[in-house]
Amino acid sequence: MKIALAQLNYHIGNFEANTGKIIDTIGKAKQNGADLVVFAELCVSGYPARDFLEFKEFISLCDDAANKIAAASSGIACIIGLPTVNHKPEGKDLNNSAYFINDGKIEARVDKALLPNYDVFDEYRYFEPSTEFNCIDFKGKRIALTICEDLWNTIENPLYITRPMDSLIKQQPDVMINIAASPFAYNHDEERIAILTDNASRYKLPLFYVNQIGAQTELIFDGGSLVIDNTGKLADELPYFTEALTYYTLNDDASISFDHQSTLKTERPSDIEQIHQGLLLGIRDYFYKSGFSRATLGLSGGIDSAVVCALAAEALGAENVMAVLLPSKFSTDHSLKDAEDLVNNLGCKSETIAIRNVTDAIEGVLQPQFNNLPFNIAEENIQSRSRAIILMAMCNKFGYILLNTSNKSEAAVGYGTLYGDMCGGISVIGDVYKTQVFELARYINREREIIPENTIVKPPSAELRPDQKDTDSLPEYDVLDKILREYVENRCSSSEIIQMGYEENTVKRVIKLVNTAEHKRYQTPPILRVSPKAFGMGRRMPIVGKYLS
Amino acid sequence: MKIALAQLNYHIGNFEANTGKIIDTIGKAKQNGADLVVFAELCVSGYPARDFLEFKEFISLCDDAANKIAAASSGIACIIGLPTVNHKPEGKDLNNSAYFINDGKIEARVDKALLPNYDVFDEYRYFEPSTEFNCIDFKGKRIALTICEDLWNTIENPLYITRPMDSLIKQQPDVMINIAASPFAYNHDEERIAILTDNASRYKLPLFYVNQIGAQTELIFDGGSLVIDNTGKLADELPYFTEALTYYTLNDDASISFDHQSTLKTERPSDIEQIHQGLLLGIRDYFYKSGFSRATLGLSGGIDSAVVCALAAEALGAENVMAVLLPSKFSTDHSLKDAEDLVNNLGCKSETIAIRNVTDAIEGVLQPQFNNLPFNIAEENIQSRSRAIILMAMCNKFGYILLNTSNKSEAAVGYGTLYGDMCGGISVIGDVYKTQVFELARYINREREIIPENTIVKPPSAELRPDQKDTDSLPEYDVLDKILREYVENRCSSSEIIQMGYEENTVKRVIKLVNTAEHKRYQTPPILRVSPKAFGMGRRMPIVGKYLS
Repeated sequence: MKIALAQLNYHIGNFEANTGKIIDTIGKAKQNGADLVVFAELCVSGYPARDFLEFKEFISLCDDAANKIAAASSGIACIIGLPTVNHKPEGKDLNNSAYFINDGKIEARVDKALLPNYDVFDEYRYFEPSTEFNCIDFKGKRIALTICEDLWNTIENPLYITRPMDSLIKQQPDVMINIAASPFAYNHDEERIAILTDNASRYKLPLFYVNQIGAQTELIFDGGSLVIDNTGKLADELPYFTEALTYYTLNDDASISFDHQSTLKTERPSDIEQIHQGLLLGIRDYFYKSGFSRATLGLSGGIDSAVVCALAAEALGAENVMAVLLPSKFSTDHSLKDAEDLVNNLGCKSETIAIRNVTDAIEGVLQPQFNNLPFNIAEENIQSRSRAIILMAMCNKFGYILLNTSNKSEAAVGYGTLYGDMCGGISVIGDVYKTQVFELARYINREREIIPENTIVKPPSAELRPDQKDTDSLPEYDVLDKILREYVENRCSSSEIIQMGYEENTVKRVIKLVNTAEHKRYQTPPILRVSPKAFGMGRRMPIVGKYLS
Repeated sequence: MKIALAQLNYHIGNFEANTGKIIDTIGKAKQNGADLVVFAELCVSGYPARDFLEFKEFISLCDDAANKIAAASSGIACIIGLPTVNHKPEGKDLNNSAYFINDGKIEARVDKALLPNYDVFDEYRYFEPSTEFNCIDFKGKRIALTICEDLWNTIENPLYITRPMDSLIKQQPDVMINIAASPFAYNHDEERIAILTDNASRYKLPLFYVNQIGAQTELIFDGGSLVIDNTGKLADELPYFTEALTYYTLNDDASISFDHQSTLKTERPSDIEQIHQGLLLGIRDYFYKSGFSRATLGLSGGIDSAVVCALAAEALGAENVMAVLLPSKFSTDHSLKDAEDLVNNLGCKSETIAIRNVTDAIEGVLQPQFNNLPFNIAEENIQSRSRAIILMAMCNKFGYILLNTSNKSEAAVGYGTLYGDMCGGISVIGDVYKTQVFELARYINREREIIPENTIVKPPSAELRPDQKDTDSLPEYDVLDKILREYVENRCSSSEIIQMGYEENTVKRVIKLVNTAEHKRYQTPPILRVSPKAFGMGRRMPIVGKYLS
């Protein structure tokens, strides 16, 4: 049996585009002699369609699309994913389903049993879990078809009370197929390979696994679809962050053969390399899928905006990036110089707009209120917000999307100005700690100096008052980032983190900063997710909660 | 058996305050001769504690609190709600539990079986549903204790596949007790009474139902705890939006007697009356629970800011409200006059800060870019954002929280400026349609004119260009709001709404406006929820989705 794996980029709710792409791919696979072509989980609707799923019309459009796809599948079989109506009276109204379509007919439907409902996932919000498990017979092979999380119930501390493959294996299948929509995090490829090879060796079956690629606002799908033999050995690994269509022959002895050049990796790419790739796809798809092509951002001469500018230029083309230098009276000469050097290195567009007239005017109209009160955070924020107002005016006049340049360390401790530097359509590095931003800068410079060396080596400063340094308000970033990782990602308590050897007052201060900044993070742009725990939809905190604040 | 119902206001993660309040109430109930005092669902932690539940330390603090409460319960029994560790290896790590504590000992634990995971609810994110059901024997009575949603599985289109009372009734209980954390929506009291009286009559048992009160950022809990006899007749209804502690004798013939003046309503309050009460509590608790006392807002002379100002003055005291008048060159004289009249009627503080110098300065620094391009949305937004920057500077300098004044109709169609009038710590009327804002204004004026008549009767205008009217860009609000209600709340498709008789182009235009404003709503403040479907945590939409946009 010849199986094609279609690792594609879908667009949520864009039925015309998704259906067209699926039907085109079926045509190609047929031309190449495939018996079966496998698409990803919820490929028909795009994933996550979120509360669009609550619209009956949306579900019926999925059904229409499935019928079109079936009609286009004469002489070939395919597996697609879509939301379907739960026909049982009890339980949620929908299932997260896979259709097995053969020669123009929908021959079988498989519903997902294990519904992820943690971190960024809300599947139990919409779907009823399946409790019935049946294999599919096709061309002399019995297929155990499952959907993503169905293979992810671990042996130690299982999250679910059932394990679909334990039921399916009783029907003596010849092969496992798993369709997925499994989002990227820099450590996720290794976890995915470990879990899936473990399934293949546990059930002694070859496994074909198809993931999506493409970004849906904050969630980035990285592909990396897998073919694993019945001993648990990786036979093939599809490319990451790009579409692919590959073919395999499942032989009668259960071995797998293929004649393309495998992209199976001999060495895992570094975290930073993966983050770099992920962010490029995240930027590109955010613009493409919203129908925009041009970005703007404020370029300070500091490392955060420099890295975002370089990523944007690579993702969108330097000609589509407008860097705006917005010096205030506290900006240093070297900052302007560093920003100009970056613009020259990238070849992007730039404008310089001094903000002093604006901040003076604002402080002027506030003078009767502020009187002679000392300069404080109010005046600092006026600078940051003046920059935002100018950048947003550029967006409104010329059709740019503003890129937010806050990093994860700042976002965590609230070191940023709401409606100021926390503005933007999308946050590019809001899931990248400051120490990782430095690594990313070095990675971007791996072949030639793009980000000026001085931007990388100088001490970080917001330059909102004379001689300001980030370390005036925050611990050194190498300490801060480690504490943040324990608290945000590993959900350790202050006492646990202190026991690891961090200074007690620093730990308590950092955690308090994180918890009292919830109201700020609530209003920030969506953040491209590259870690296992990003701020945004995957981390949901009370705002007026009192715990550790 | 004498049963006390404790309808209290909790603070998420504030263990000291919650535990103290529970123990004080146990003391009072004991003094009043109660055998059993019943608290609300998750009263120990506050609800919703959201991802705080993922911290082991948080759960262990809940456990500590329960032990303290048990120690304080000598000679009396109580029921409290808290998250507990799921001791089974499979499934989620936690349960949503009730403890039955008697004479200093935790005698029984009941876990919630039906976990709401729709709209604003995420309970399946944290909790494993119970599959075991046991009654509790106490003082010769057998109690069927359930938690909130456990009684909410409807007969037609059941959302869950089990019904806990169907199991418990087999053990022949004498009484049902249900502890809840059931948030307010203006239509929810009637639904709650219908569901709970239906349970009492179906199982032929008296029912004691205890809800929380108090606002937790966007969610407002309205109380309205209920006592229902074994025929399904309402015996008592606790007050709404305020704490209460009431006592009942459950007699041996299953009848219920009590000697306080009942607040059982003979007539349901109007939607607007309930919304008014809910918003006052929402404002008050947002400030109190965040440790702030003073609010500011921009007062335009229009109805939205007038209503918010009046609500804030009532909730926080007029002396704690600073209204800022921010006229531009497009502001009309009557707007300033209307705003001043309101300030005088309320007795709140006010300042007038003309924004012209600021908008001139911004347009000045942008002149080289904007050149002679015609005035458009860019200049409109500059005005709105200039006001925001001034208001936020006032907040930063003087410690106010900025109240957002956008209404639900504007929020729906994106008729507002991100980082401009969409700013604020909390959105007061973001779940109130414009047509309801007018009703609310009339209600606020029910005894005397607080909101100037001219503010109510003049055509709504953003006054961002000469002679602008909302209806230049939007359908009349009475049509718009009806279409929005069908689309947002009832999840009707455009074709269904058109079939109801609305004009096709208007419907399509409105739905497109709603869907293309997701990126704006993503960055707006939390919205006090008063309807069954508010923007915010209860409505989760893709940003780059393509459906109906």
